[in-house]
Amino acid sequence: MKITVLSGGVGGSRFIEGLLRTKGPGDDVTVIANTADDIRLFGLHISPDLDTVMYTLGDGIDRERGWGRTDESWNAKEELGAYGIEQAWFGLGDRDIATHLVRTMRLQEGRTLSEVTAELCERWRPGVRLLPMSDDRVETHIGIDRDGHRELIHFQEYWIRLRAQVPVEEVVIQGIDDARPAPGVVEAITGADVVLLPPSNPVVSIGPIAAVAGIREAIERTAAPVVGVSPIIGGGAVRGMADQLLTGLGVDLSATGVAGHHGARASGGLLDGWLVDTTDAGQVPGLQALGMAGRAVPLWMTDDATTDQLARDTVELALSIGRRG
Amino acid sequence: MKITVLSGGVGGSRFIEGLLRTKGPGDDVTVIANTADDIRLFGLHISPDLDTVMYTLGDGIDRERGWGRTDESWNAKEELGAYGIEQAWFGLGDRDIATHLVRTMRLQEGRTLSEVTAELCERWRPGVRLLPMSDDRVETHIGIDRDGHRELIHFQEYWIRLRAQVPVEEVVIQGIDDARPAPGVVEAITGADVVLLPPSNPVVSIGPIAAVAGIREAIERTAAPVVGVSPIIGGGAVRGMADQLLTGLGVDLSATGVAGHHGARASGGLLDGWLVDTTDAGQVPGLQALGMAGRAVPLWMTDDATTDQLARDTVELALSIGRRG
Repeated sequence: MKITVLSGGVGGSRFIEGLLRTKGPGDDVTVIANTADDIRLFGLHISPDLDTVMYTLGDGIDRERGWGRTDESWNAKEELGAYGIEQAWFGLGDRDIATHLVRTMRLQEGRTLSEVTAELCERWRPGVRLLPMSDDRVETHIGIDRDGHRELIHFQEYWIRLRAQVPVEEVVIQGIDDARPAPGVVEAITGADVVLLPPSNPVVSIGPIAAVAGIREAIERTAAPVVGVSPIIGGGAVRGMADQLLTGLGVDLSATGVAGHHGARASGGLLDGWLVDTTDAGQVPGLQALGMAGRAVPLWMTDDATTDQLARDTVELALSIGRRG
Repeated sequence: MKITVLSGGVGGSRFIEGLLRTKGPGDDVTVIANTADDIRLFGLHISPDLDTVMYTLGDGIDRERGWGRTDESWNAKEELGAYGIEQAWFGLGDRDIATHLVRTMRLQEGRTLSEVTAELCERWRPGVRLLPMSDDRVETHIGIDRDGHRELIHFQEYWIRLRAQVPVEEVVIQGIDDARPAPGVVEAITGADVVLLPPSNPVVSIGPIAAVAGIREAIERTAAPVVGVSPIIGGGAVRGMADQLLTGLGVDLSATGVAGHHGARASGGLLDGWLVDTTDAGQVPGLQALGMAGRAVPLWMTDDATTDQLARDTVELALSIGRRG
């Protein structure tokens, strides 16, 4: 079976770990990772979601933090602060820097982000084919109010420095209109047996991936069922900081709200099916009304067992929906 | 008194520390640092001599090693090795990386190396005016024999990876013909009361500085006495690794040999005076025959007291020679 996953960072990575532990021996997993939260800082090209997937699946992640490297030190970051560099709010670990250096160096040599990702994965051997959504530069900026006037700041600054606690007035995905899918991305979607959306942020993770025109089109035309997992459980984001991002865009803070935001494939959206938490079981009929299959299962990935069961449930819902046409 | 020093890295920095401890309260020190051992590695612009001077005088140097930062960690370097990056032989410390990141970022923003150096020195407050010899890119490459054919490698690779143990067939200072003195450099030489050459490598430290046409010319026309300290004591380099570099260029491994390599100002060279170690006192008459003042004093900078005395002796020799014209 060919499984293709559209993924953000932390939630996506954990879900994929479950998928890899539970998949059949002949199953292949391709991960298309969001690159819209990439940022150039300190002259470095940083790809947080690609790195989180790569480190998590390659067993290099700090599991407690959920991002960044194991056995990390923060000396370069401390020194950047001592130099008065303003962006030293970014979580730049010393081990992590090596990844950014290799990526930046290769991009400057004229390689694509796909090629660099493949090179980095030669070391990490994540057990999946890891593809950036696009080799073109895409950056999510968040519009906030600063003393009465609108200011656009990079998503990372919003997320890390402001801890996502400021109301969101606008989300601008710069470069998205010109972004082409990276090599292999379209084929991975159209050639898949199932396409899965892990519990990732609908606005800044899944949103940008699906906003790449060629990817959107591939999702529209793939025969594979597309099934997602709600990142909202009982009215709050699994990783709490996403609340402002959703409400700022008028997305209802509920499993059904996010499903409606993505939309049903039957009516030009992304989803054939949507998993909600058992505490949200009452929303399943509403999902069916939206035009998608709904199912309530435990969504909290608190340990390997629950994560594995969620991966199984997601694949099962997809298979129960079956291929189109 | 205005004191201008042409400096390489370790030896120069130690000498300047002595100078700062012993100078009069109204004396100003300007340091013109070699930038020909600068290297671009991992996409970073690294300026080893500038950094060694800055860290040493700003009390950020690891005194035992003589280069790099105190309390340093090496995680990024280890990771670069794990990625199979070949140049991971370079001593890239995690704290040190921050300096390279700031420098590289600023240069990419269009600032000059002089401007970046000034910015970095705002933090380190080295107590001197620190100027790069040039804002133009200059790189020393060493010609070695590899299986019967000549290969040019960067000086840093020769010095660090090969530990300077391979015969030198050629020294090529790339870019030197087009390099202009950085702002303030010419004035610092022509306006000085004394110009001092600490015990730095004559081929790869003092050599490139003096090879910048505008600097050479400023040395020719300054009225200030120019006095140097031999980096050779009793037939060996104070920092042993320089031997191959000197002999490969036909420089006699002696205090007088290096003095002759630099040449007397009276005959178009660099020096009005030269300090040799007391063990080399027998060479003083030969120096006078070369057309420069010679004096034998203890040259080993083993502690603050000996370093300070050497700084005093150097200034004293310069003052005893006096201004020209």
